Amino acid sequence: MKKSTKILLSEKEMPRQWYNIFADMPNKPLPPLNPVTREPIGPEALAAVFPMELIRQEVATERYIDIPEEVLNLYKIYRPSPMYRAINLEKALGTKSKIYYKYEGGNYSGSHKANTAIAQAYYNKQEGIKRMTTETGAGQWGSAMSFACHHFGLELLVFMVKVSYHQKPGRRILMNSYGAKVVPSPSTMTASGRKVLESDPESPGSLGIAISEAMEIAAQDPYTKYSLGSVLNHVSLHQTIIGQEALLQMEKAGDYPDVVIGCFGGGSNFSGISFPFIRENIVNGRKTRCVTVEPSSCPKLTKGKFMYDFGDSAGLTPLLPMYTLGHNFVPEKIHAGGLRYHGAGVLVSQLLKDGFVDAKAKMQRECFEAGVFFAKNEGILPAPESNYAIAAALDEARKADIEGVSRTILFNLSGHGHMDISAYEKYFDNNLPDHEMTQEEVDKCVAAIEI
Amino acid sequence: MKKSTKILLSEKEMPRQWYNIFADMPNKPLPPLNPVTREPIGPEALAAVFPMELIRQEVATERYIDIPEEVLNLYKIYRPSPMYRAINLEKALGTKSKIYYKYEGGNYSGSHKANTAIAQAYYNKQEGIKRMTTETGAGQWGSAMSFACHHFGLELLVFMVKVSYHQKPGRRILMNSYGAKVVPSPSTMTASGRKVLESDPESPGSLGIAISEAMEIAAQDPYTKYSLGSVLNHVSLHQTIIGQEALLQMEKAGDYPDVVIGCFGGGSNFSGISFPFIRENIVNGRKTRCVTVEPSSCPKLTKGKFMYDFGDSAGLTPLLPMYTLGHNFVPEKIHAGGLRYHGAGVLVSQLLKDGFVDAKAKMQRECFEAGVFFAKNEGILPAPESNYAIAAALDEARKADIEGVSRTILFNLSGHGHMDISAYEKYFDNNLPDHEMTQEEVDKCVAAIEI
Repeated sequence: MKKSTKILLSEKEMPRQWYNIFADMPNKPLPPLNPVTREPIGPEALAAVFPMELIRQEVATERYIDIPEEVLNLYKIYRPSPMYRAINLEKALGTKSKIYYKYEGGNYSGSHKANTAIAQAYYNKQEGIKRMTTETGAGQWGSAMSFACHHFGLELLVFMVKVSYHQKPGRRILMNSYGAKVVPSPSTMTASGRKVLESDPESPGSLGIAISEAMEIAAQDPYTKYSLGSVLNHVSLHQTIIGQEALLQMEKAGDYPDVVIGCFGGGSNFSGISFPFIRENIVNGRKTRCVTVEPSSCPKLTKGKFMYDFGDSAGLTPLLPMYTLGHNFVPEKIHAGGLRYHGAGVLVSQLLKDGFVDAKAKMQRECFEAGVFFAKNEGILPAPESNYAIAAALDEARKADIEGVSRTILFNLSGHGHMDISAYEKYFDNNLPDHEMTQEEVDKCVAAIEI
Repeated sequence: MKKSTKILLSEKEMPRQWYNIFADMPNKPLPPLNPVTREPIGPEALAAVFPMELIRQEVATERYIDIPEEVLNLYKIYRPSPMYRAINLEKALGTKSKIYYKYEGGNYSGSHKANTAIAQAYYNKQEGIKRMTTETGAGQWGSAMSFACHHFGLELLVFMVKVSYHQKPGRRILMNSYGAKVVPSPSTMTASGRKVLESDPESPGSLGIAISEAMEIAAQDPYTKYSLGSVLNHVSLHQTIIGQEALLQMEKAGDYPDVVIGCFGGGSNFSGISFPFIRENIVNGRKTRCVTVEPSSCPKLTKGKFMYDFGDSAGLTPLLPMYTLGHNFVPEKIHAGGLRYHGAGVLVSQLLKDGFVDAKAKMQRECFEAGVFFAKNEGILPAPESNYAIAAALDEARKADIEGVSRTILFNLSGHGHMDISAYEKYFDNNLPDHEMTQEEVDKCVAAIEI
C-alpha cells in the first residue's frame, strides 16, 4: 500500500515570532540609496508609501519579531500548515531519497501569500490607513491581499500585470469577490503606465511596471499606502513562519533536510521556507543546501548582475543592492506569472553573493511535466510557480540516486493550481514554449541599465 | 477583533467506521425492482456493474461498517477535515445565532467527493477490476475519482455532462492531469448517447444521461466496472465520515446543532453531514432539524413525486423508490452542475417521506449572493453547489433573529469554487438567470414518466 505521511503541528506549537535573518548574516546587505544623492536613505524616505511599523521591520536588526495577536488569530484559520512526506512520489520516481513538501495552498487564497497579506493589512489598519494599492502577477498576491484588506476594512486597488489579467481571469474575479478593484497594468491611470503604453501600446506588462503604478497612486494621498507581495525584507520576514514551522515538523518526523528548495520570483517564497534553515547553517554548523529555482527566461540569480538597481520599472523606489536583469526588463509571458520579476530581494541577493544560497534555472515545459507527475502521485495540482521547485526536487533525487546516496529533500509547495488550469491546458496541447536567456542577452540587458 | 474559530480533530480521533442509517430507520426503504418483472431484485442484478463489496454495502443492515486500513491511510492525507465557527459571518449578519461549517474543500479534489472515490476505487482494485467508468456533472466527482483510480492503478473513462464540459474546462483538465479520459455526454460512444443526440442534437446533457452511458460501457466487459458519485446507499455510507467527525467536533466545541444543512443533488453531500445527526434524533431523542437545499429549477424533493423510477435516463438501472421529476427530465443549465439530477437517493427519499428531513428549494442568484457574502467574511470562495447550503443557513439565522431566539446552525461547505470562477464572473456581470419550476410543470413531467 502506498501511503503519504502527514506531519502536523498543533495550534499551540505554532511559532509566535517571525525570524529576521539580518541578525545572523555575517555580511550585512548594503543600504538602499537615494537615486539622486546616492546617499543611504533613512526610513523616512519610505513613509510616503508604507506604514511606520513595516518600515521599522524593513530595517530591523533583532533576531525575532513578535507576531501580533490579531495576526496570529487569522493565521490560525489555516496554520500551522501541513508538511507531507511524498511517499507516492518517491515510489513512482524509484528514488532512495526522501522527499518532503510543506503545503501552503490550503488557505483561502490558495498560496503562501496570505502570510504577509494579513500582517501588512493589519499594520496599515493600526496606523489609520483607509485605502491600499498593490501590484499582482498571476494574482496569488492580489487575492491574498484582497481578503486581508476586506477583513480589516481597507479598500484595495490592484494593478494586475496585463498578460495575467487576460490569461488568468480566475484570480481577478476572486479579487472582485473580496471587494477589490482590479486594473490591468500598464494602465492609463498613472503617469508610469501611460509612459509605457506610449512606447509600447501592446506591452504585456511586468511586475516592475505594476509596482510603479501602485506606488504612484499611493504616494498621492496620506490615507493610501502601498503594499508589496515579495522582494522587501519585511515580506520575507512574514513568510518565515513557513520555515519556522518546517523546522519543528522535520524534528517531529525525526529527520533533517540535506536540501531545501523554493521557487524564485522576488524572494518571499524561497525566503519563507529557507531562512530558518540557513540560520541553522550559520549558527549551528548544519550543512543544508538551500536552492532557489527561477525560470530560464528570467534568470537574475543565475545570470544577472549584482548591482544597485530600481525595484520598479519607473524608478520610484530607492536603489537596492541586488541581482538584477535591469528594472526595464520585460520577461517572456510564461505562465508562472509570480516569477516574472527583474530583480531579487536584497537579503537573498547578499546571501547568494556570500555562498549561502545555490541558484538554479529551469525551462517552463520541464516544470509543468514535473507538476503533472507530482499531481498524479500526490493528488495536489500545483501552481505553475511551485512546479519550478518540484522540478528541482526531482533533479536532486535523481542526482542522489546517480551518486548512490539517499538525501532528504524538502521543498515549498507554495500554492495549488486550480486557478491556473489554462496553463495546464496549454501544456497538454503541446503549446507551452520554452525560453532561455543566454548570458550574452542578459549582459546586454544589464549593460543598458540606467540609474 | 474578528476571529474565526477552528475546531480540529487529531488523526487518532478520526472515526474508523462509516455509519449505515438503514439500521436505525423506523421504516425501511422499499426494495429496488426489476423493471421487467416488477419483482425485488437481488444483489446479483448489480454484479455486472459493481464489485461485490459495494453491492454488499448497498444492501447492508449493520449499523457500522469498518473503513479498510488502506482507505483510512488515504483519508489521513486530508482528514479529519476542519470545522469552523463562522464568527465573521455572524458579525456581518448581525445575528444572535451561531453558525458552524464543516469544510470538505481542502483536499486534492476540492470537494467532499474524495471520501467515496477513494473507497470505491479501493474495492474495485481489491476485486481485480482494471478499468472504471463514471459520470460527472460539474466535475467534482470526476476529479475525485480520477486521482483515486490513478492511485490504485485503474484506468478511468468519465462521461461529463456536456454543458459542464464546456462551462467548466478546469475540472476536465484536472481529470486529464490525473490520467483520466473525459468525454462530453451525450456522446456517440454509446447507444444511450446516440439515442439522445438523435432526438436532440443540441442536448446539454444531464447526470441521468451520463449515468446511462457510463453503465452501458461498464456492462460490456467483466474487468470494467461503473462507479456512481451520489444517490446510492453505499455512496451515502462513505460520506458519513463527514457527519461522524462533525458530531465529535460539535462536542469539542461544547455545542450541538439545532439545524444541519446540506445542498442536494443526488443526496451524498446531505447524507454525509446529516445522517449521524438524524441517528441522534431517532435513537437519543435529539431534535436537530436536518435541511436539504435543492435548486428551484430541479425541485424533486420539494415538488417531485415519491414513486418508482429509473436512476438514469436510458432505464438501465433497477427501479428505485424515490422522489423524482422523471428520469428523462433535463434540468436547466444552472451552474451548480452537481445539483442537476432528476431523482433523490432512496434513503433520503424515505427519510423525507417519514418526516426526518426538511426540504427547501432556492434560486440561483440568491445562492451566489450568499456565496460572495460568505467569501468576503470567511475567506473561502465556495463551490456553486455549496452556495445553496449557505443561502439556507443565512435564512435560518435571519428567521431565528425575527423569532428572537439564538439557534446553532451547522452546514456542509462541501467544496471550494476556485474552478467555478466563470459562474462567479456571470454573477458579477448580472448574467445569472433564475429558473423556478412550478408545481404544474413538475406534475406534467411526472405524469409523463414511463417505466
